[in-house]
Amino acid sequence: MTTTLLTGIGLLATQDDELGELTDAALLITGDRVGWLGPATDAPAADRRLDLAGRCVLPGFVDSHAHLVFAGDRAAEFAARMTGQPYTAGGIRSTVTATRAAGDELLRANLARLAAELHAAGVTTFECKSGYGLDVDTELRSVRLAAEQTSEVTFLGAHVVPAGVDRSDYLDQVRGPMLAACAPHARWVDVFCEAGAFDVAESRAVLQAGIAAGLQPRLHANQLTASGGVQLAVELGAASADHCTHLAPSDIDALAGSSTVATLLPLVEFSTRSPYPDARALLDAGATVALATDCNPGSGFSTSMPLAIALAVREMRMSPAEAVRAATVGGARALRRDDIGRLAVGQRADLVVLDAPSYLHLAYRPGVPLIQQTWIGGVPV
Amino acid sequence: MTTTLLTGIGLLATQDDELGELTDAALLITGDRVGWLGPATDAPAADRRLDLAGRCVLPGFVDSHAHLVFAGDRAAEFAARMTGQPYTAGGIRSTVTATRAAGDELLRANLARLAAELHAAGVTTFECKSGYGLDVDTELRSVRLAAEQTSEVTFLGAHVVPAGVDRSDYLDQVRGPMLAACAPHARWVDVFCEAGAFDVAESRAVLQAGIAAGLQPRLHANQLTASGGVQLAVELGAASADHCTHLAPSDIDALAGSSTVATLLPLVEFSTRSPYPDARALLDAGATVALATDCNPGSGFSTSMPLAIALAVREMRMSPAEAVRAATVGGARALRRDDIGRLAVGQRADLVVLDAPSYLHLAYRPGVPLIQQTWIGGVPV
Repeated sequence: MTTTLLTGIGLLATQDDELGELTDAALLITGDRVGWLGPATDAPAADRRLDLAGRCVLPGFVDSHAHLVFAGDRAAEFAARMTGQPYTAGGIRSTVTATRAAGDELLRANLARLAAELHAAGVTTFECKSGYGLDVDTELRSVRLAAEQTSEVTFLGAHVVPAGVDRSDYLDQVRGPMLAACAPHARWVDVFCEAGAFDVAESRAVLQAGIAAGLQPRLHANQLTASGGVQLAVELGAASADHCTHLAPSDIDALAGSSTVATLLPLVEFSTRSPYPDARALLDAGATVALATDCNPGSGFSTSMPLAIALAVREMRMSPAEAVRAATVGGARALRRDDIGRLAVGQRADLVVLDAPSYLHLAYRPGVPLIQQTWIGGVPV
Repeated sequence: MTTTLLTGIGLLATQDDELGELTDAALLITGDRVGWLGPATDAPAADRRLDLAGRCVLPGFVDSHAHLVFAGDRAAEFAARMTGQPYTAGGIRSTVTATRAAGDELLRANLARLAAELHAAGVTTFECKSGYGLDVDTELRSVRLAAEQTSEVTFLGAHVVPAGVDRSDYLDQVRGPMLAACAPHARWVDVFCEAGAFDVAESRAVLQAGIAAGLQPRLHANQLTASGGVQLAVELGAASADHCTHLAPSDIDALAGSSTVATLLPLVEFSTRSPYPDARALLDAGATVALATDCNPGSGFSTSMPLAIALAVREMRMSPAEAVRAATVGGARALRRDDIGRLAVGQRADLVVLDAPSYLHLAYRPGVPLIQQTWIGGVPV
């Protein structure tokens, strides 16, 4: 196997509890894996050497929550919201109309473009949800297209009840033919558990059907209201409860006492002018926290994991180290992945090189494109 | 002269009160100027044609406030601040130490790198201040280096009193030999009028000395306290009062009744976790508002005018159109320039092409690098 030595690493932030942060470091890529890492002076020989001139290297970001299969945009809805119109779940339906009308080639091109944006923003693994089809054909097209780009595909037929369809009939459809069609192409099942979307009982029924079909559960929980979604996620052993914007103390306790990751999505609070989740309470209670983009055309159309990190520091009082951890190993845990999110021997060689000496700069230099290189499986993209 | 026709412009936001916004537009560049603009169907012949495929075109951003001549960074100070340490003017002195120790080549390379970042962020004109030298030699080096990159050079010897120098002696030096050395290389004189820096009487004395030496005044005013700086800026007919974070109603009235632009710097409030200026009160009173980056290593190390626009919308309740106006024609007014900041026949062909159909996307897609092309004087950079 070809070996590549990245040397001259100013700061190597491994996100590995044993390895910690190394200065003046080097990292050997062997095939698609990390073969060795340590002080640059101890580095082994390699087929190729790349001197990073003091730059910082991190694990690639793991974006565990994104909605990337859709057509159209909602810039006008955003502008209206900024003048005071509240965000509700209902706007999703306008994207559904555009997505159903789009051909596969348009949806594929849109998804590829957003995937390229994510890579340029340092994301090396992303999850991708369906949920803008809301009929069997378009949901199936959505998960198939998503599976062309990522192994982390989520069936989100239960995003909202589509216009003109009876609620009970729709839930039967989601748990029946839609799930049957989509499950072979997906790993996860998700529900938007929220006022205006699905209540706790409905969400439980959909997630249980998904589990029975071989999918693993994750949940949109407590975004706009204290909906009970977090408790449901913990009850079902979901990998992640996403948003967590409105939490009761009992929700925080439940997350801290479980293996369910609290995935925070501050780009959504930014773009909906909402209060930010209480990350400090979650971290201080011992919950595992992830950061993700939630890139979607309605509540937050950003692929910028670096801005999510900057917002986590500025608005949620996470330290820069906590924020980077949440965007790497936190995201990996939210996807129940052990091969990514850390840099250690045997891990997948997914990493980012910053055009900066430290990961502090991700928060210190907000809005500046600092991702100089993104490597996935040992290959620069 | 060579002519280039930009056609297929989805939305051309001219920032010109008469021309307004044009859809399905084209723009002819003749030499370094705008030669014609209008509906694409009426476009004249040209030596070259470039089809922008529906993208949005704006005037280039005018960044009227930036501190770009320095060495070192203050990432650790930033991280400490995010855990609760307040921002004070005193941190400037650590950058002064690093800047004095740096050779011209290092300072030139740092400045060139930041200028390239600004261009990539859509900035076509930027102001650049001295103020990290604080002795005659280093201030002179600073304005000379700045003048290599921009015609908008500002002498800011009165940034803070340097360590180990008597306050009165320093003010004599600034108004005497330092001003005499720097004035031939600068257009503007500026003072950091603030608690911990210079009071109103001291600021007035420095600005008046600068005016007597042929420079035009601008002022750091009301950033950390209601310092009286805004009233001084209006009294002296300054082109701009910058920051305006803490304003009394009388300050707003003074700005609205003057030709002094209120330059807002929300990236600083972001990076110092401070309350944002009351842009709505300024706009509603009729003041001219500009947005600028204030890129500097202490209070906000960002070159991202797009993020400044997104913050203006999210945090200061400016509409996207008001924010873009402030970042273009507002910045031009803050530099008393009539040849930039708008797109109209005869204006300099400084413009940005967004990888988006509308300028709304600058706020709708925060953190996403949407500047596809930056043209300065009719040439892509």
